Amino acid sequence: MSRPAALEERLGHRFNDARLLEQALTHRSHGAGNNERLEFLGDGVLGCAIAEELFGRFPGLPEGKLTRLRASLVREDALAEVAGYLGLGGAMRVGAKQQVTRAVLADAVEALIGAVFVDGGYAAARGAVLAAMGPLLDRLDPDQPAKDAKTELQERLQAKHLPLPQYRIVSREGEAHRQSFEVECSITEPPLTALGRGTSRQRAEQEAARALLEKLR
Amino acid sequence: MSRPAALEERLGHRFNDARLLEQALTHRSHGAGNNERLEFLGDGVLGCAIAEELFGRFPGLPEGKLTRLRASLVREDALAEVAGYLGLGGAMRVGAKQQVTRAVLADAVEALIGAVFVDGGYAAARGAVLAAMGPLLDRLDPDQPAKDAKTELQERLQAKHLPLPQYRIVSREGEAHRQSFEVECSITEPPLTALGRGTSRQRAEQEAARALLEKLR
Repeated sequence: MSRPAALEERLGHRFNDARLLEQALTHRSHGAGNNERLEFLGDGVLGCAIAEELFGRFPGLPEGKLTRLRASLVREDALAEVAGYLGLGGAMRVGAKQQVTRAVLADAVEALIGAVFVDGGYAAARGAVLAAMGPLLDRLDPDQPAKDAKTELQERLQAKHLPLPQYRIVSREGEAHRQSFEVECSITEPPLTALGRGTSRQRAEQEAARALLEKLR
Repeated sequence: MSRPAALEERLGHRFNDARLLEQALTHRSHGAGNNERLEFLGDGVLGCAIAEELFGRFPGLPEGKLTRLRASLVREDALAEVAGYLGLGGAMRVGAKQQVTRAVLADAVEALIGAVFVDGGYAAARGAVLAAMGPLLDRLDPDQPAKDAKTELQERLQAKHLPLPQYRIVSREGEAHRQSFEVECSITEPPLTALGRGTSRQRAEQEAARALLEKLR
């Protein structure tokens, strides 16, 4: 693989060990020496660097808003956007039948951060995170309106590394144009369930999530 | 607050700014200057330090097993155990009506790690994580991560050639589409029983097994 100098420039890090860079860009569909372990490491490094940055950038912001901002930065959408900025699409090594999806790209961003960490330590990795995610960081709005209930519940569980909620339709009544849905939302830790009703499945799910958040509080 | 020298010794970090330590041990129920923002930061730092340690300690372990090991270390149970080792129970500042629960203690461990990070940087915080979580790290078994509770209980008993657990439904409430089950799990050696609730028999059994594992520990 030719050395992707533009990528290293955008990361603000020139690799001492270029094999780490190659590994970070190798999807598991390509075979051994892939980026899965680096992705695991990079996920942790990214979370830490983002937390440090938000903690320092927004000194007065309460924990709940910080958590929401962090979640918005580490989600697949955001990381796939970073991958685009870094130009990863053309640099990935994937198996013959593997598409370079947004998920593949988002994972590769995490793996890259892990690779910089192995190559240069925390300060270098933090620098790479800020270089790669600067545009996203700069357009953050700390006062962005509260998330809908389903998102808030999901983010709250993710922040504690707990299993995500499950939704299932309990009942569906009425004719096509005036249906009423009842949905159950359940989580396993702590074991709780809550019901919600609405005129669409989506609304019923939101109500169930809201009811479950109430129980959590 | 008197300076908790024993705590600093167990963390392997003496604070330059003792106010950070005080803040880390102040629950939100106590008022302003509480540990919520430090907890947000510490959560990220902890995830990173644990990822780094697992990545280095288990060079051949695939990503899935690393992820499960990390989850087992950052869950509330594990952090509450660390809080016990650090002796946080008596050091917390909480509001008059606030119990020092396992959740309060687990959050304070994260806040402490965040405080060390602010006070001394990543290397100091990583050192504190390893000092505080050393016992948990040393007893990790990379080949036996995160089984579900019923499997873990069964395997634990089998390993000691003890009789297997029995599960029985204690009560079943509600209509067909929103039932709640209560299940009792019992073992004979040592003679213990535990209850679990859930929206299905299977979930209730898992909860009962989890509660019984807690009693065994």
